[in-house]
Amino acid sequence: MVQVAILGFGVVGSGAAEVLADNRRVIEKNIGKTVAVKRILDLRDFPNSPFGHLVTHDFGEILADKEISIVAEMMGGSHPAYDFTKACLEAGKSVVTSNKEVVARFGAELLEIAAANGVRYLFEASVGGGIPIIRPMINDLASNEIRTVNGILNGTTNYILTQMFENGVSFEGALADARAKGYAEANPAADVEGLDAARKIVILAALAFGKLLSPDAIHCEGITKLTSEDVAVARALGCSVKLIGHTRRVGERVLAMVSPRMIPCSNPLAGVSDVFNGILVDANMLGECMFYGKGAGKLPTASAVVADIIDIAAHENGVERAPVFVPATEADYADFASYRTRSCFSFVTAADAEAKIRAAFGAVQTVKVGERIAFISDEMSEAEAEAAAAKTGLTLASRIRMI
Amino acid sequence: MVQVAILGFGVVGSGAAEVLADNRRVIEKNIGKTVAVKRILDLRDFPNSPFGHLVTHDFGEILADKEISIVAEMMGGSHPAYDFTKACLEAGKSVVTSNKEVVARFGAELLEIAAANGVRYLFEASVGGGIPIIRPMINDLASNEIRTVNGILNGTTNYILTQMFENGVSFEGALADARAKGYAEANPAADVEGLDAARKIVILAALAFGKLLSPDAIHCEGITKLTSEDVAVARALGCSVKLIGHTRRVGERVLAMVSPRMIPCSNPLAGVSDVFNGILVDANMLGECMFYGKGAGKLPTASAVVADIIDIAAHENGVERAPVFVPATEADYADFASYRTRSCFSFVTAADAEAKIRAAFGAVQTVKVGERIAFISDEMSEAEAEAAAAKTGLTLASRIRMI
Repeated sequence: MVQVAILGFGVVGSGAAEVLADNRRVIEKNIGKTVAVKRILDLRDFPNSPFGHLVTHDFGEILADKEISIVAEMMGGSHPAYDFTKACLEAGKSVVTSNKEVVARFGAELLEIAAANGVRYLFEASVGGGIPIIRPMINDLASNEIRTVNGILNGTTNYILTQMFENGVSFEGALADARAKGYAEANPAADVEGLDAARKIVILAALAFGKLLSPDAIHCEGITKLTSEDVAVARALGCSVKLIGHTRRVGERVLAMVSPRMIPCSNPLAGVSDVFNGILVDANMLGECMFYGKGAGKLPTASAVVADIIDIAAHENGVERAPVFVPATEADYADFASYRTRSCFSFVTAADAEAKIRAAFGAVQTVKVGERIAFISDEMSEAEAEAAAAKTGLTLASRIRMI
Repeated sequence: MVQVAILGFGVVGSGAAEVLADNRRVIEKNIGKTVAVKRILDLRDFPNSPFGHLVTHDFGEILADKEISIVAEMMGGSHPAYDFTKACLEAGKSVVTSNKEVVARFGAELLEIAAANGVRYLFEASVGGGIPIIRPMINDLASNEIRTVNGILNGTTNYILTQMFENGVSFEGALADARAKGYAEANPAADVEGLDAARKIVILAALAFGKLLSPDAIHCEGITKLTSEDVAVARALGCSVKLIGHTRRVGERVLAMVSPRMIPCSNPLAGVSDVFNGILVDANMLGECMFYGKGAGKLPTASAVVADIIDIAAHENGVERAPVFVPATEADYADFASYRTRSCFSFVTAADAEAKIRAAFGAVQTVKVGERIAFISDEMSEAEAEAAAAKTGLTLASRIRMI
C-alpha cells in the first residue's frame, strides 16, 4: 500500500482524491499496488466531503508521518508551496505537483534536492493540464534534439480568442463570457497578460534545452490589445490567432517568449479551440508532433497528478532518470531583439498605402479589410520591423507575428 | 555500454542505426549510458553503408552473443520476425519492434514470454510511427478507464483522402499520386483495404481493454469505394472523410473496427491531413486527448524504436510494468450487428425523394449535392440502417458512418 498526502484541497486537490478513489481498481490492476490518500492539508474543514476526516491543518503532521511516501502539492502560489515541497523532498518523500509557478521559479533547485535525497519531483500537471507532455518529452523524445516548441498553453485565453474568432465577439465581451462560464478568474491578469503561459513555456524550454529561464525575464505579450479588426484581418489571410508560448535554441542560448501569433489554418495548432491546449514539438528525428487535450479542469489535471503518483508508486525500488534544470544565467538568454519572424502588419488605409508599403517592405501581397490594409512580411528582427513600419509613414494598427 | 542488434536493415532499420549514431551524445546525456549497434541481420550486404561492417546473415550469431542485450526487430512480415523475436526473448534479450503484424497477431504470447524471462517487449513504433502513443497510454493514462479510441492510423490512405478532399482528385488519381511520391507501395492493398489500420487498432484496443482481438476477425472496410461525390457530400455537411480505426468497450466485450467516417470539422481529427496520423483517446478522467504526428517514414519511426531501446537501457536493473494482452476468445468480440452509429446516407435524387426519406428516417435535414440527396441519420444498428434505406425505395449511393 502506497500512502499519499494531498496539500491543498481545492479544485485539483479534491479531483486527485476522487480520481484515486474512483479508479482504485484500474490503478491496482495497472501497477499491482493500492494507492490511498492518508492525509489532506488545508486551512479549511470539509465536513461534507467523503475525505473530510483526512483533513489536517498541521503540515508538520504530514512531514513527520513515515508512512506517507508521496506528497501531492496542489496549493498554488509560491509560498508556502515551495517551502513545503522542499521540506518533503528533504524528508525523503517524493513530491508531485500541478503548481507551474513553483516549477517555473524553483524547479531547478527542487529537482536537485530530489536527486540528492533519492526521491522524485514530478510535474506532469503543471503544463497542459491532463495532456501527457512532460513524460513524453522526457521518455519518448529522448533520442531527439528538440528544435522548437510552440504551445497553446492557456485555456482561458484560447477560449476568449475562439469566441472572438468564431462569434465575432469583442475581447471584453469574450472575457465577460469566460468569467460567466467559470473559465476566467475574477482577476484574469495572469491569463490574459500571458504570465501563466510564460511559466509553462519556461518549463517546456527547460525540458527541451536544460536551462530554466525566469518567466519574468522573457518577452511576454498577452491578448488584451487584440481587436475584432485583427481577427478580421487574420481570417482574410486564412489564419487563426492564438496566444503562443514559443521556445527555440539560438546557438548555445535559449529563446522563450509568449505572444499572440497568426497561424495558417493548415497548421494543427489552428484547430485547437475553446479551452483546449495543444503543444506542437518539432524534434530533429521525429519531426512535428502535437499533444492535444484539456489544458485545465478538475479531473483532467487531477488525472495527470495521479499519473505522476502512479509513476512513483510503480518505481518504488528503481532509480528513474530525472530531468536536470540548470538555472539560467544572463548568458543563457537569447537576444530577443535579433529574433527574426515574419509578421502580419495592419495599417490604417490611406492614400497611396499600397505604394508606401511596397517601398518599405518590398513586393508583399496586401489585403484590404474594412479600414485596414494588411500583409505578411518577410522575416525581420524587431528593429527592422519597427523601422520599416515607420518608413511607410502610415498609422500602424497592429503587428502580429506569424508562427 | 548497451549493445544492440538490428534485425532487418531496410528503411526503418537503417534509420534506427542512424538515429543511434547521430544522436549518441543526446542519448548519453539523457540516460548516462552509451548505446551502440553491434550487429545487423539482413540477407543483403551493404558495402557502401557506414554500418556495412556490422552486417551478418546469421541470426544464430546474434542469438548467441551474450553482449547483445537488446534486439530491434524491423524486418516486417510475420515470419521469421515472430520466430526470431521469440528466440531472443527466450534467450533473455529484450526486443523492440516496429512490426505491427507481429504485435497484432502474436503480441499476447510474446509479452507473456518476455515477462516469464524477465525481459521486455516494446512496440512504440508499431502504431503511429514516431508519435508517442503506446507509452503514454500505459503510463500517463494509468489512472483512467479508456472509453474510446479513434485513430487515423494509416498515412497512405490519409494522403489519398486529403488529395480527394482538397484537390478534388478521384480515388484512382490520388492513389497514383501517392505511388509516385513513394507513399503507397506497388501493392497498396494492406493500406487501402484497411488491413494495416486493423492491425494497429487491435493493438490500441489491447492496450485500452486488455484483450487482443484478431485483425482478421474485426469489421474492416477500406477506402476503395469512396467517390468524389462522397467527398462533395461530406463538404456540404461541414465534414471531412477519414479512414478511422475505432475501438470501444461494449459491456465486457470489445468492439474494434476500421471504416471510413465522416468527421465534423470541429473534431480535431478533421485537421489531420496528408501522411500525418492522429489518435484521439477518450478517457474517463482526462477526457479527449489527441496525439498527432508523422505516422510513417524512416526517421520518425526509427525515433520511436530508439525511444524503446533507451527505455530498456535506462531501466536495466529495474522491473518495469508491462501491459498484459489476453488473446480474445469468441466471447470477447462485441456483436458488430448491434453497434449503433449515426451515418451519412446519400441517395440518388428522384421524385419525392425528400418525402420518402422522411417516411423512412424521420425528420432529418437533407442537403442536395449534384445528383445526390444526403443527410445524417440518428443512431441506428446495421440492420436498422439497411431496413430504413430499403424502405425509401430510393437507390442508395453510399452510407458513411459518423465518428
